[in-house]
Amino acid sequence: MGKENAMTPKGYLFSAAEAAIKKPGRKDLALIFSEQEAVMSGNFTTNRVKAAPVKLDMKRIRSGRGRAIVVNSGNANACRGEEGMRDALEMTELVSCALGINMKGVYVCSTGVIGTPLPMGRIRPVIPKLTKGMGKSTWDDVAAAIMTTDTFPKVVSRRLKLADRTVTITGLCKGAGMISPLMATMLCFILTDARIARSALDAALSLAVRESFNKITIDGDRSTNDTVLVMANGMARNETVEKGSADFKKFVRALSDVTSALSRMIVRDGEGATKLVEIEVRNAKNTRDAEKAAFSVANSLLVKTAIYGNDANWGRIMAALGHSGISMREEKTDISFGKVRIVLRGLATGKEGEAADVLRQREIRITINLHIGNSSARVLTCDLTEDYVRINAEYRT
Amino acid sequence: MGKENAMTPKGYLFSAAEAAIKKPGRKDLALIFSEQEAVMSGNFTTNRVKAAPVKLDMKRIRSGRGRAIVVNSGNANACRGEEGMRDALEMTELVSCALGINMKGVYVCSTGVIGTPLPMGRIRPVIPKLTKGMGKSTWDDVAAAIMTTDTFPKVVSRRLKLADRTVTITGLCKGAGMISPLMATMLCFILTDARIARSALDAALSLAVRESFNKITIDGDRSTNDTVLVMANGMARNETVEKGSADFKKFVRALSDVTSALSRMIVRDGEGATKLVEIEVRNAKNTRDAEKAAFSVANSLLVKTAIYGNDANWGRIMAALGHSGISMREEKTDISFGKVRIVLRGLATGKEGEAADVLRQREIRITINLHIGNSSARVLTCDLTEDYVRINAEYRT
Repeated sequence: MGKENAMTPKGYLFSAAEAAIKKPGRKDLALIFSEQEAVMSGNFTTNRVKAAPVKLDMKRIRSGRGRAIVVNSGNANACRGEEGMRDALEMTELVSCALGINMKGVYVCSTGVIGTPLPMGRIRPVIPKLTKGMGKSTWDDVAAAIMTTDTFPKVVSRRLKLADRTVTITGLCKGAGMISPLMATMLCFILTDARIARSALDAALSLAVRESFNKITIDGDRSTNDTVLVMANGMARNETVEKGSADFKKFVRALSDVTSALSRMIVRDGEGATKLVEIEVRNAKNTRDAEKAAFSVANSLLVKTAIYGNDANWGRIMAALGHSGISMREEKTDISFGKVRIVLRGLATGKEGEAADVLRQREIRITINLHIGNSSARVLTCDLTEDYVRINAEYRT
Repeated sequence: MGKENAMTPKGYLFSAAEAAIKKPGRKDLALIFSEQEAVMSGNFTTNRVKAAPVKLDMKRIRSGRGRAIVVNSGNANACRGEEGMRDALEMTELVSCALGINMKGVYVCSTGVIGTPLPMGRIRPVIPKLTKGMGKSTWDDVAAAIMTTDTFPKVVSRRLKLADRTVTITGLCKGAGMISPLMATMLCFILTDARIARSALDAALSLAVRESFNKITIDGDRSTNDTVLVMANGMARNETVEKGSADFKKFVRALSDVTSALSRMIVRDGEGATKLVEIEVRNAKNTRDAEKAAFSVANSLLVKTAIYGNDANWGRIMAALGHSGISMREEKTDISFGKVRIVLRGLATGKEGEAADVLRQREIRITINLHIGNSSARVLTCDLTEDYVRINAEYRT
């Protein structure tokens, strides 16, 4: 599932190693390296409390360029003050020294527990091993090394033709908890060998993220570390993609495909989740209302637990719509589970049995038609299970 | 716990009966009756989707007067269109006929499943039994009859002296799920024999609700049926309480005591909850920020599951503060669990072991000092457990 035809774009090398950051027994440090300097764009958490690596990357991304990304799991390097920033800087410094590249071209990402010191004593000696091992690991090794509570590595590739050149876009990410909208959610690295102008890459990333990572929610919590970084090293030798061109549109479509597939994987692998749920709100007064309504339903614990229990409890959807603060009229609202219309103009249609059958599937679409305006929105979420509670009650023990 | 010295104010009679509304085997219909017409005030859900009884009561409360309240559990009589309103009206009509009182003085409340027809065929024949049984039941019978997923009935009394008269205020309520702020949460009935002007009663209720029911959250979901009704029949024969007087202040204090104790009981009895958690935010920029921050922490699934797991995972509190949209600075923020300061100016103090001991208690206070302004807020919540999921996944099965 995580390996959906992964293809490697030209000129990228990978490495993964074990630094026993949280505990020994698995690779938890990874490196992504581009043979040529890449054009880069980034998207970072909107949480006011930002981890040190996020703060550092936000500065470095201003250059729009880079060569390498070093990532660790098991520790978020967040809420540690100046010490955290020193550690983040040192990680990039060690990588830049070992590779003989400019430190400003090295990005760093961390994921895991907040507020605990990063064990630099264990990380330092592993960095040379990491850089020496470059090329000996694959996508999947990197995707596995950055996992926290994820149950499978997440990698997606798309190939497109730009004139006579073949361009590859490959993304990998980790998710599982603290997933919520309005930011570049989780850690995601997208590599492409496309040659693209920086402004075009920025625009393409914004467009792709808006309808993928910014439209998923697992628990409504927004992390301190969420980062999406895209590298484009130009090694496909296509004509430079410029904003607004036909090639740009193709590139955005392929990039959106990658981010959508990845965000779907994140939700499917939501902590404790057994079902993927798509909430579609149609004919809202405006886009803001449509999104608010969709997220209110998607984040309702009562809706999520009902779905888990195969209970077509549409009343909880009505209640979630009603307190979302949007313009709505109960007596105009239709609700469908899959193709089964369970509410027509605010009233039960009596098809709860059929709707419960829809809920027994692993992928469910809930459509809400407000019949008030012309705007719509779609949000992906998952059900809420005892396992989510168990995972998060025991996360650090 | 639910019986904390309950005293009955003068002139109120109670009755409870079984109508097998959801299933047989328990009393699920209750009646509260005042021998004399009472001054009344109400507070209703802000959810745009309002149940039929809420809509009806909102109309009737404009008169500021009433004699009786009929309540059923097992069915919310919500999202049923005109049929729902007909049923709500009929319930009050049957009670008014049987008691020989004006129908407009009868209020009705419902709680339970949304969107399912109210079994009027079973309710109709029970109403005469209900009115005939008046005086044969107690507070506790009524409190028990209106329970849904509550595990204990909730009743609180306060007595106060106004000049040489003794006034009693007794409140009863039900809670458990779909509990969230910014409205008169759940069903709550407060009866007093005080003689009070209607404007004074309205003002007193608003003041009392603001710092009690509007400052609790169990799951962030806001119901379609939430109602607080207060009846004051004047049978204590005190001098009429007028707004702004010394007696008014005394009355507000006692009423607030009752609503605070009831809201505490609701949170303690939150679905699946094992712990009562008080989140206090101090020195926020303004009250809005303080409340937003407190609710963001109180509603974070990650914070709630960590508390359940006795894990002093303050990083999740920082993350919840950071995405709450308030003004804050990580490096100014202090966090304490009980008396154990676990974060000082944004950094861990290393007292996680002591903090985990605090979390093992059944009542926990988490204090967050933002050191930015002078406003504060306090919110009550509970932990999130596997049982919450189980209860809500299986609610209708």
